[in-house]
Amino acid sequence: MHPRQEMIRITMRIQIVAWRTMTTIRYLLFIGTWTTFGMGGCSNEETAEAVVALAYESGINVFDLSEAHSGHRAEIQFGRILLRRAWNRSSYVVTTKIYWNTKAEGRGLSRKHIIESVQASLVRLQLSYIDIVMIHKVDPMCPMEEIVRAMNYVISKGWVMYWGTSRWTPVEIMEAYTNCRQFNCVTPIVEQAEYHLFYREKPELYMPELYNKIGVGLMAWSTVTIGMVSSKPEDCGVSFFSRSSYKNKYSSFSWTEDETQSLYKEQEYGWKEKSADDETRKYSDKLRDVCALAERLGCSFGQLAIAWSLKNESVQCLLLGASNIDQLYESLQSLQLIPKLNANIMNEIERILDNKPSRPPMISTLALR
Amino acid sequence: MHPRQEMIRITMRIQIVAWRTMTTIRYLLFIGTWTTFGMGGCSNEETAEAVVALAYESGINVFDLSEAHSGHRAEIQFGRILLRRAWNRSSYVVTTKIYWNTKAEGRGLSRKHIIESVQASLVRLQLSYIDIVMIHKVDPMCPMEEIVRAMNYVISKGWVMYWGTSRWTPVEIMEAYTNCRQFNCVTPIVEQAEYHLFYREKPELYMPELYNKIGVGLMAWSTVTIGMVSSKPEDCGVSFFSRSSYKNKYSSFSWTEDETQSLYKEQEYGWKEKSADDETRKYSDKLRDVCALAERLGCSFGQLAIAWSLKNESVQCLLLGASNIDQLYESLQSLQLIPKLNANIMNEIERILDNKPSRPPMISTLALR
Amino acid sequence: MHPRQEMIRITMRIQIVAWRTMTTIRYLLFIGTWTTFGMGGCSNEETAEAVVALAYESGINVFDLSEAHSGHRAEIQFGRILLRRAWNRSSYVVTTKIYWNTKAEGRGLSRKHIIESVQASLVRLQLSYIDIVMIHKVDPMCPMEEIVRAMNYVISKGWVMYWGTSRWTPVEIMEAYTNCRQFNCVTPIVEQAEYHLFYREKPELYMPELYNKIGVGLMAWSTVTIGMVSSKPEDCGVSFFSRSSYKNKYSSFSWTEDETQSLYKEQEYGWKEKSADDETRKYSDKLRDVCALAERLGCSFGQLAIAWSLKNESVQCLLLGASNIDQLYESLQSLQLIPKLNANIMNEIERILDNKPSRPPMISTLALR
Amino acid sequence: MHPRQEMIRITMRIQIVAWRTMTTIRYLLFIGTWTTFGMGGCSNEETAEAVVALAYESGINVFDLSEAHSGHRAEIQFGRILLRRAWNRSSYVVTTKIYWNTKAEGRGLSRKHIIESVQASLVRLQLSYIDIVMIHKVDPMCPMEEIVRAMNYVISKGWVMYWGTSRWTPVEIMEAYTNCRQFNCVTPIVEQAEYHLFYREKPELYMPELYNKIGVGLMAWSTVTIGMVSSKPEDCGVSFFSRSSYKNKYSSFSWTEDETQSLYKEQEYGWKEKSADDETRKYSDKLRDVCALAERLGCSFGQLAIAWSLKNESVQCLLLGASNIDQLYESLQSLQLIPKLNANIMNEIERILDNKPSRPPMISTLALR
Repeated sequence: MHPRQEMIRITMRIQIVAWRTMTTIRYLLFIGTWTTFGMGGCSNEETAEAVVALAYESGINVFDLSEAHSGHRAEIQFGRILLRRAWNRSSYVVTTKIYWNTKAEGRGLSRKHIIESVQASLVRLQLSYIDIVMIHKVDPMCPMEEIVRAMNYVISKGWVMYWGTSRWTPVEIMEAYTNCRQFNCVTPIVEQAEYHLFYREKPELYMPELYNKIGVGLMAWSTVTIGMVSSKPEDCGVSFFSRSSYKNKYSSFSWTEDETQSLYKEQEYGWKEKSADDETRKYSDKLRDVCALAERLGCSFGQLAIAWSLKNESVQCLLLGASNIDQLYESLQSLQLIPKLNANIMNEIERILDNKPSRPPMISTLALR
Repeated sequence: MHPRQEMIRITMRIQIVAWRTMTTIRYLLFIGTWTTFGMGGCSNEETAEAVVALAYESGINVFDLSEAHSGHRAEIQFGRILLRRAWNRSSYVVTTKIYWNTKAEGRGLSRKHIIESVQASLVRLQLSYIDIVMIHKVDPMCPMEEIVRAMNYVISKGWVMYWGTSRWTPVEIMEAYTNCRQFNCVTPIVEQAEYHLFYREKPELYMPELYNKIGVGLMAWSTVTIGMVSSKPEDCGVSFFSRSSYKNKYSSFSWTEDETQSLYKEQEYGWKEKSADDETRKYSDKLRDVCALAERLGCSFGQLAIAWSLKNESVQCLLLGASNIDQLYESLQSLQLIPKLNANIMNEIERILDNKPSRPPMISTLALR
Repeated sequence: MHPRQEMIRITMRIQIVAWRTMTTIRYLLFIGTWTTFGMGGCSNEETAEAVVALAYESGINVFDLSEAHSGHRAEIQFGRILLRRAWNRSSYVVTTKIYWNTKAEGRGLSRKHIIESVQASLVRLQLSYIDIVMIHKVDPMCPMEEIVRAMNYVISKGWVMYWGTSRWTPVEIMEAYTNCRQFNCVTPIVEQAEYHLFYREKPELYMPELYNKIGVGLMAWSTVTIGMVSSKPEDCGVSFFSRSSYKNKYSSFSWTEDETQSLYKEQEYGWKEKSADDETRKYSDKLRDVCALAERLGCSFGQLAIAWSLKNESVQCLLLGASNIDQLYESLQSLQLIPKLNANIMNEIERILDNKPSRPPMISTLALR
Repeated sequence: MHPRQEMIRITMRIQIVAWRTMTTIRYLLFIGTWTTFGMGGCSNEETAEAVVALAYESGINVFDLSEAHSGHRAEIQFGRILLRRAWNRSSYVVTTKIYWNTKAEGRGLSRKHIIESVQASLVRLQLSYIDIVMIHKVDPMCPMEEIVRAMNYVISKGWVMYWGTSRWTPVEIMEAYTNCRQFNCVTPIVEQAEYHLFYREKPELYMPELYNKIGVGLMAWSTVTIGMVSSKPEDCGVSFFSRSSYKNKYSSFSWTEDETQSLYKEQEYGWKEKSADDETRKYSDKLRDVCALAERLGCSFGQLAIAWSLKNESVQCLLLGASNIDQLYESLQSLQLIPKLNANIMNEIERILDNKPSRPPMISTLALR
């Protein structure tokens, strides 16, 4: 069965819980980073175009680009692909990000940087507007009012349809929302956040609250879903959680120091990282069990990871990545796995992972007396 | 006497009660759907142009287009007619609609869909702005804030002068209005709604309240006035209320399932539909009597239906439709009938119809004690 | 002495009390109506250009155009003059008006009409923006919110710098201001109103209050200052107040019926018009005395009338009109007269006129007990 | 050591305390006035370009232009330099000012003047947007609402990124901020103010409060830093404070009469100017001691003055000026001096100056009883 058929069926079923504004945008392709474009992914444009075309024809209509990686090559190549394919502009959604750093030119987040970034992306993509622009990380030096007004400006100019965030804490998103309300600006609609079997706290505990209270949906990604690791069970332990390689890639992506990163997780979510060796061993055990389960279900570890993420209804979009057609095809087939993930299987996974996040108990100051 | 003469006389008289912003836009032509353009109506552009020209010369200055039907042919043809005729842009009002569905591309109402729809209509019409854009039905998946801000955006861009609604419930219109006030956006000015001898509740009970409280006028249409049925008395019973044909046409127009439709009416307005046979029989009796009255007045059933609708002062605009000049001429002549509809005749019609809507009595919880 | 010298000197002196936004715009030329352009005024463009050039060189930097009279010829001719002269755009101020009627196309005030009018004026004037657009009379059929938002729109588009009103009552101006505050729109800055020796109530009693409270300045005009009557003392009685000729011209200007006009004055300001004969006789006596005074001062009646108007500090702008250079030169010379109007002379004029307006006494409901 | 190396090091260090929106814009070049462009500065464009290029290559990324001086030559020349150099637009910040006067054309501050000034600057600079536009002095005749709305307009048009003020009192800046909040407009981000060894009150006492409360940073300039005086110790006494030459240059810059100027300082900051001779003598003593200290530190008086200004953390930007490469190079080298300004040296300077500003004690009305 061609994945498209399955896709459409599932899409129909899930639209009831789908994302607020673009109801069927649920499965999307994460391209433009180390997988599809450049950095050891499909390095030539023909392969990239084939992947994009298969995605589009399979019902995927969201394409997420990331200016930071691979120079600006991803946007330029994707723009050329769109030009050649000449699909109806209303049939797909292009999202990109605003990156900033503290080292080079264009340093710091500012109205100037936001506007210049969006204009540059439009030129590279050869589009008259981008559907969603996400700001990658908050700059504590830039007032939230300035960010919010600048995003409202690029929307009011018609350059952008919606705006979102990427790697913001729930508190930062809430602050943005408050500023939008104070200055009558358009509110953000999406947070792009990491979500996988071993990182569940923010997506499962905090994002549903944000979605229900202020309409910010979750666009989830993980190293597995975006194709950074082999999805073959035998390799997964090594490539997914070998901390050093993970850290290197992660930090090149996140523009922060590794130290900050781990500190951050600890402070924000109470998830204390142990020594790398210790962690790797612990994850290895769990991984081995998940891989065994995947084998029983007749799928790869990667496919199980994707299907598991999609079972969570608070994931409005899941980012997929692929460096060639086969990888994408394999990822898409994981959609057929979803119906198989019944309560029993889900419970078994939960038992293996043993990391279901829960809110810390409220501490009553009265009780302390 | 040429209808134009009569038109102007009546136009002059009624301008005191006319619509808030465009005082003399009261009679207008509903084109662009199954009547004037395509779908068994006048299929060639010459006939359409002749109808539009007669309308314009007769004092009609509002032209309502509907993107949904007949592909986008109506907008394209009407744009070409305007180009050829080169009338002063300030002498007419073009209205069109934003449709959405849950099946194909451009699915769901969203900022993206609204903006893309308006831009596409402008291209097809070859106009620099549309006077009124109406949103056809509310999408419960799309936040009202997003709709309201998107409409404000297309207005602030200069693409649209005003916005309105089509087939919204009074509560939905009120919610839109509240959101406009909250976010300092331009409020809607018109609701396009069905209104005829046998569907009176919403237009007669609820629309006047909306007009007086928040300035939303009523643009009324019915299968009779837009020329979907023969206006000859002898056919009217068959073509107007033969449920099956009615339902088919209606549902193709409304983009909803028939079931939803009847359910909706029942829930919202307490008008419970009986079995199709039962209904048809009951209406047939009333229709026979109305047709007899029309004969006595020396006019067709359609003309009487039009004149009756215009007697209601809460109808700020009545949509007329015609697939050829003769049909339009006949409809326009119904204006001469209005003065003849004195209190006696109106009472007689009321007696025949026996469906004057009234608000359900307020139930006092005190009285229940 | 060349009028320019005098002008500059006086301009310097009065700038302390001058108008809020354009401090030296005090003397301006009322062109584009029956005097400078068309309708028995200077009918050829060379004369008009000579008048405009003399005005500009004499320090006049505001040019008021009126779309309503003489077709749209005034705007077209003035646009051509500006193009030929190529003065620095920042060195002059162009004001024009939005007219509406209840008879022809473009009927009624509406967002559509306001935007279309401004765009048409820009085309005729060949300018990229108009400095001030005034709305001539309120349309009770059009909600004030719609007017205020439309004016804010044309300003936000960059087509207009400021907006004002013309022939609005103080209550209407206040309502506009309230709506501006409610919807965060730009407030109007000027009311163009009639002001002369025999019409003093609104300008002297109500306009200073509006200026001080909400910053709406007064741009005053009268039949004398805009050159509709001969400024020679021997003719003034006949031409200024012969009611029939006055009324004809007036009504063609004001787009209202004479009856409405007199009724309006009576209702609004308690100035009851007697029969035309009666009125003319009464005014004739006063006029004869004012003319005698003018003769004593060595100036014409018109010059005295201009100087008298300028003595009133609540007149931020006085509209002058001329159908040829000589008329304008004569009007400009009246500036030299202002220093001669000392307290004694002003008192004598007050004694002659015997029409100093005063607010009706507050009626205390307590006192009535 | 090439100044660039030092620059980058220091820039890195200070970015923690740097300005809110453009974190590393701390050292900038004040060009376009009597130093770099025209008026006895480098009169030919090649020299100007060399200065600008050295500045850019040394890490300076803010260029401040001033329309008022040297005709509009500075903007035109700087625009041509940018065109030739073709640096990345996001790598530098262009700031300019809006001047107004009470004598010539374009008199008074107004929406018209602001918009026309910005448009003219854009044309001269050949840029599509200016980063910061500062309004030079408040016009008491122009309502603050008008200023604030006009600045918001040029920002919303995309012509300007930010706005600021120049020579405004803290109370005026606060009033602007209040108006911005009231009308939901973008708030100003910078005040350009004089700051040097002998003028410390406003920058040291009031600007930090504005920065902390409403985010308005300080862009400081002085006759020394912008290169108006020789930085050689032996000349400094003569050229820096010889009142007559200072006053002449100053007044040509400030567009006000000298009398107003000194009156202003006295009223606003309680700094009473004595007779010119008296003042000069008093300053001469202090200057002599500062010059001696500079000699001990192995730098020029000018370099010490620059380094001293940069030690103050409330100086977010310091304007440097140079009429040739050597001057700029010398100024840049003063950055190496900053680490040497330890607590002892700073205390010694404080002792020499004996003018540390302090807020007047609060007077309690209770204590007076």
